[in-house]
Amino acid sequence: MTSLDDLPVRADLRGKSPYGAPQKSVPVALNVNENTHQIPEAVAHDIVQSLAVAVLGANRYPDREFAVLRDSLAGYLNRGLPEEQALTASNLWAANGSNEVLQQVLQAFGGPGRSLLSFDPTYSMYPLLADGTGTRWIGESRDADFELSPETAAVAVKRHDPDLVFLCSPNNPTGTPLSLDTVEAVYDATRGIVVVDEAYAEFAPDGTPSALTLLPGRERLLISRTMSKAFAFAGVRLGYLAAAPAVTDALRLVRLPYHLSALTQAAAVAALRHSEEMLAMVDDIRGQRDRIVTRLAELGYRPYRTESNFVLFGGVRDPHAVFEALLEQGILVRDLAIEGCLRVSAGTEAETTAFLDALAELDSTV
Amino acid sequence: MTSLDDLPVRADLRGKSPYGAPQKSVPVALNVNENTHQIPEAVAHDIVQSLAVAVLGANRYPDREFAVLRDSLAGYLNRGLPEEQALTASNLWAANGSNEVLQQVLQAFGGPGRSLLSFDPTYSMYPLLADGTGTRWIGESRDADFELSPETAAVAVKRHDPDLVFLCSPNNPTGTPLSLDTVEAVYDATRGIVVVDEAYAEFAPDGTPSALTLLPGRERLLISRTMSKAFAFAGVRLGYLAAAPAVTDALRLVRLPYHLSALTQAAAVAALRHSEEMLAMVDDIRGQRDRIVTRLAELGYRPYRTESNFVLFGGVRDPHAVFEALLEQGILVRDLAIEGCLRVSAGTEAETTAFLDALAELDSTV
Repeated sequence: MTSLDDLPVRADLRGKSPYGAPQKSVPVALNVNENTHQIPEAVAHDIVQSLAVAVLGANRYPDREFAVLRDSLAGYLNRGLPEEQALTASNLWAANGSNEVLQQVLQAFGGPGRSLLSFDPTYSMYPLLADGTGTRWIGESRDADFELSPETAAVAVKRHDPDLVFLCSPNNPTGTPLSLDTVEAVYDATRGIVVVDEAYAEFAPDGTPSALTLLPGRERLLISRTMSKAFAFAGVRLGYLAAAPAVTDALRLVRLPYHLSALTQAAAVAALRHSEEMLAMVDDIRGQRDRIVTRLAELGYRPYRTESNFVLFGGVRDPHAVFEALLEQGILVRDLAIEGCLRVSAGTEAETTAFLDALAELDSTV
Repeated sequence: MTSLDDLPVRADLRGKSPYGAPQKSVPVALNVNENTHQIPEAVAHDIVQSLAVAVLGANRYPDREFAVLRDSLAGYLNRGLPEEQALTASNLWAANGSNEVLQQVLQAFGGPGRSLLSFDPTYSMYPLLADGTGTRWIGESRDADFELSPETAAVAVKRHDPDLVFLCSPNNPTGTPLSLDTVEAVYDATRGIVVVDEAYAEFAPDGTPSALTLLPGRERLLISRTMSKAFAFAGVRLGYLAAAPAVTDALRLVRLPYHLSALTQAAAVAALRHSEEMLAMVDDIRGQRDRIVTRLAELGYRPYRTESNFVLFGGVRDPHAVFEALLEQGILVRDLAIEGCLRVSAGTEAETTAFLDALAELDSTV
């Protein structure tokens, strides 16, 4: 049997393993920061209606410019912006998940001879995306407790002079919020592209300003978002980005034609018509997250500050043993190889209870 | 207003324009080789049922290994293969359109310092995909009438010693069939990866052997297919590939995690359950294509040999003028800047008649 090593695969891929959070079928899956709430049935019904129309026209290529979707995304983001900062379709871009959005950003602004800086620990796909596009990866350190001050960030950016900086806000896998001061400091410190990845922005406290408010006058600033989390749409794969129209012009040069299917466009547009209902579960999830933080502290763990739909907690003597013990009870969390830490997504009330109770039981034994 | 040139975009992208067949809304669109037949209503109904189930689980990430889809694709291809050559899911790979499949092939086996050879004129995305992945593009010539003999192909391959060879079979935009002798000669002449792009394979005469029959013992041979054409599924974006399991292992290293949405997987699996009905229109399209060839010859044009769902024809004194004159009558064909040629997709009987009648009218005036 031929193996991978018998093929003329690129030298830098030899010996590598594919990305893979385990996809196990367990009763309580709290490992990949999904929204564990199903889409409300009335909304699902409307989405399916839109999909039915799309299927009837599926023999034709989809709108390459996904004009209606870009318009809908602008409308959604504008709900949180002052009128004079309103975005239009020309500011919006979308792709099959924010991974693809970020890959396109690296294809346009990174690549061989260019570099991408971010602050570890952060979203594990960043270095993989850099690798895949031939962009040099620079992983800098954070302050204590995974925070990132304007000073620390700006000093690192000035030292490395990267072509791109990715700032995950709030940060995955730590949950840590990022101040707009840090975003501004990084922007001012670089001549390069600054991406603020706001995948989890909707889980921040009400009134927390988005980096979207910094867009006017900053043509190198890109804000990426996703419908995977707050919109409970991970299965549909819809990541998007807001930036100056010139940025979307650049992305148009590297995207594959017709990269967004007619089904993706139809489903996302329908879901955005129901933002209110889709986001109704966000409050509930924030409540469960806060409950996790409180309870973990009571149990003697050390939860980090979080504004996302998950909690990273330290003080775990043997993370691998705790992971396995929880899994035995049908509860899947994430072991990210951060010393003494595990990460758990906030689930429904019942899922969260199952996790907290199981952990409390374990406490004395592991 | 910031323009693209004010941004730190990659030097090799400056001054480029995005890919773009015009997306005009006209009564008779025969320009991008779509299947102009709608999906049969009963099949569409079943697809929508599957999509409804997928929407209810869309809060979770899709199956990253798209196991059911790969199994369904293997089953479909096996209908045309002898039992001892039957493929399994481990031979199959899929992505958002064959463009993405080919991009992943170049990410795994091409890239900086490597080269891709094909034979012009051919599918216009090949050089763009090479460019986007930093792979050097080598465009070699064909024989007379856009044919490609084993000798011509093997000599070019030996001369350039490329890392990859793409063979479009039948060739787009010329329609020209490719013999398995040429595929074998190319494979034997190279140490590299050989991709046979069979996007239009289902439109070949009954009994035409696919390059799939050459797979056993050839671990560097990859056969790409798409559901866009014969399956009337261009809007769903489902390209796929059959090869040795080691090849799909290599592609797993470069694909973005969860690159195929739950909707795409559900729709494709449902459509593959109805291959017979989905392919029922293929016969009709082949009939219209043959009718176009016959009639064009009667009108004094020079249609090239075609085994696809479109016809390239020469003998057009002023292709641009004919293109515009047809467009004025609501008929969109394709002007590919091949001297004295235009390309037309075979439509429904009514669309084909509209095109042929309009062209016959023009004949005396343009």
